[in-house]
Amino acid sequence: MRAVDLIRKKRDSGEHSREEIDFLISGYTRGEIPDYQMAAWLMAAWIRGLNRSELAALTEAMLYSGEVLNLSQIPGKKVDKHSTGGVGDKTSLILAPIVAAGGLTVPMISGRGLGHTGGTLDKLESITGFNVNLSLEEFYSVLRECGMALIGQTAEIAPADKKIYALRDATSTVENVGLICASIMSKKLAEGIDALVLDVKTGSGAFMKSEEDSVRLAELMVETGKRMGKKVVALITGMDEPLGRMAGHSNEIAECIEVLNGRGPADLRDLSVELSAWMFFLGERTKSLDEGRALAEKMIASGEAKEKFKQGIRLQGGDERVIDDPRLLPQARSRTDVSSPSTGFITATNCEQFGTALATLGGGREKKEDTIDHAVGLEFHKRIGDRVEKGEPLVTIHYNSGAKLAEAQSLIATSFEIGEAAPREKRPLIRRILGA
Amino acid sequence: MRAVDLIRKKRDSGEHSREEIDFLISGYTRGEIPDYQMAAWLMAAWIRGLNRSELAALTEAMLYSGEVLNLSQIPGKKVDKHSTGGVGDKTSLILAPIVAAGGLTVPMISGRGLGHTGGTLDKLESITGFNVNLSLEEFYSVLRECGMALIGQTAEIAPADKKIYALRDATSTVENVGLICASIMSKKLAEGIDALVLDVKTGSGAFMKSEEDSVRLAELMVETGKRMGKKVVALITGMDEPLGRMAGHSNEIAECIEVLNGRGPADLRDLSVELSAWMFFLGERTKSLDEGRALAEKMIASGEAKEKFKQGIRLQGGDERVIDDPRLLPQARSRTDVSSPSTGFITATNCEQFGTALATLGGGREKKEDTIDHAVGLEFHKRIGDRVEKGEPLVTIHYNSGAKLAEAQSLIATSFEIGEAAPREKRPLIRRILGA
Repeated sequence: MRAVDLIRKKRDSGEHSREEIDFLISGYTRGEIPDYQMAAWLMAAWIRGLNRSELAALTEAMLYSGEVLNLSQIPGKKVDKHSTGGVGDKTSLILAPIVAAGGLTVPMISGRGLGHTGGTLDKLESITGFNVNLSLEEFYSVLRECGMALIGQTAEIAPADKKIYALRDATSTVENVGLICASIMSKKLAEGIDALVLDVKTGSGAFMKSEEDSVRLAELMVETGKRMGKKVVALITGMDEPLGRMAGHSNEIAECIEVLNGRGPADLRDLSVELSAWMFFLGERTKSLDEGRALAEKMIASGEAKEKFKQGIRLQGGDERVIDDPRLLPQARSRTDVSSPSTGFITATNCEQFGTALATLGGGREKKEDTIDHAVGLEFHKRIGDRVEKGEPLVTIHYNSGAKLAEAQSLIATSFEIGEAAPREKRPLIRRILGA
Repeated sequence: MRAVDLIRKKRDSGEHSREEIDFLISGYTRGEIPDYQMAAWLMAAWIRGLNRSELAALTEAMLYSGEVLNLSQIPGKKVDKHSTGGVGDKTSLILAPIVAAGGLTVPMISGRGLGHTGGTLDKLESITGFNVNLSLEEFYSVLRECGMALIGQTAEIAPADKKIYALRDATSTVENVGLICASIMSKKLAEGIDALVLDVKTGSGAFMKSEEDSVRLAELMVETGKRMGKKVVALITGMDEPLGRMAGHSNEIAECIEVLNGRGPADLRDLSVELSAWMFFLGERTKSLDEGRALAEKMIASGEAKEKFKQGIRLQGGDERVIDDPRLLPQARSRTDVSSPSTGFITATNCEQFGTALATLGGGREKKEDTIDHAVGLEFHKRIGDRVEKGEPLVTIHYNSGAKLAEAQSLIATSFEIGEAAPREKRPLIRRILGA
């Protein structure tokens, strides 16, 4: 078998056998197939597409390129959630403590932010001392002790995905539902979980702008997970505006603590409870989704989820005092408001621009090597459907340097669409549920 | 400008500006754009296509990536011919001496064989001492003295093409008329010629199997050349069976000498005269194509073309005695015949298989690094339309090692289609002429 022949086959819209996919992925991971051949194949696959059986083979080849965690030493069901990312999407930090407090194990391997989206690992690192780079032994140990652990992708987990993702990023072969599915599912299945809840974002702040693409990705991921013997459900959820009121690292952690204290914005709280409920149900902790919701609510009301988050922070080396005093999180030096240019109703937002504005202020990455200012952030005062008066604050910017402030202000100001009448319908946050 | 954005643009079927093409080609040639990004772009361009203005920009960017020869120091018109390659295609070695003897200058930069096709440089190297690696100064000096010189691509000529071609070869992005056109024309235009005759092969022994693809490539090359202010004509010629009776290196040189002696097979002689006539006409040596034909015939009949070849060999360090005694060329130790399995008429051949059989015997390259056995070869006794008796020899194999003889025999035997009736029509060798 030769890589050049397999590239030709995909270029000419041919279908790969499982052996051919294995040859490509294992050869590339071992360094026997050079970057330029994989790049040509990825572009051919991006344009020509991969069918269901090719995708299954690709996901498995990437999954088995490294270690698949064996969590059988830890009793009970292991469940996780994965979100395709958006602006202000911080549910992981709420639901992991809820579900762990409720008795399941949550072995969560997360990513970093890139472009307009934030990353769970970056948010956690705004807590002084929090270590996301645990060894696998430390990871097992934290999981066993408190039922949740949040770390980054290690060298052992799906090394093929790590290498291929970096290449896709440099060769404009990222946005393809097949390749995205294989990348996500190979990593998540390597966690050794029993069940997975997928939060597939759709709308102006998501990677997938159209509901149609989001549904296709969700279907592929559900199918792939089920084929591998896992319980999987996917929620298609709206990302037409930020989730919750906060975007940025410190202030997203603070908002999560708000929710765990029984307060916080309704959309964030409701989605976190809903995702937790699915995790309880798929993890067989409850007999129904309704029971799952009730358990999640109870874990918040009793303070058990908050205590679990505190324990998790402590076990991963972080300063647990932030739970009781969120002002210990890095704070930006200055604040300024972006005000409404007119009176009317907010009819839509270009949500991705909020994320870009945050990155412009230093609260995100344009390149992988960029460092993050955890203190900067955006505080949203209005939601789609809200009435605003001319001059009323729409967003408060928390910033440290005025260097790119004007650019960020302009991005934010132009993100809002303000009309004379309220939008006729407000779409529900949860649009569809697949695989249930 | 960033390469990753240009890859995305072509991936999404966008059209590049001249500046974008320049950025890609010059960046890649200088090593600033890595192989993997160029590979992804090439695959996107292969699948999505390049339009006329992108192609013009690409050709020029590759042309000006290196030195464009300045032959103004040599008086008179400079003309060249390029063939897209086939089996037994050796006209360069006949027409270069004819045209140089007739008074024009032929600065020919040729290639090596790969796959089923032979290369002019490899054929010349079957002459002891013949040096195809002249410096540009030596090249000018030989040209000035005898009006013809035959060398390989130097580091100075279109380095972008050299680098891109190697990458295309490894990433299955070779067979695309746009990329082929840019590769050929950037090299040929760098020769500093006034006129170019293109021999675009079509049929089972050519790279372009269909006449439609061959015509598209020919049209693109003619248009590109004319846009650059050159006189260009393209002949679409048949490659459904080998050209002449000989394939292999030594024995193709011997067959060329036959033609220059006024003998040799009619198809080879006629096509060489026709291509020479076009070169005389486009180079303004004759007022008409007919006069060009007459001049070519005269150069053969007078022995002037043969003497010119002798002089060219001598000036490039080769053993000129081969002209009078072709047995000085490397000879294979053994011969064996492939005989006809039945009585009937030859209706077609899978011509590419003859080239593959020759390479199998050592007379061709599968990889660029392979060395060539100049002595091995195939001698064809029958042409399409000929009647054959069962057991009559179809091909005589000249070979040195029996190691892969059976494989070669099988390839040859299965190349012939023998039917009960003669094919209804015999298509002319020259199918179409474009750009005249």
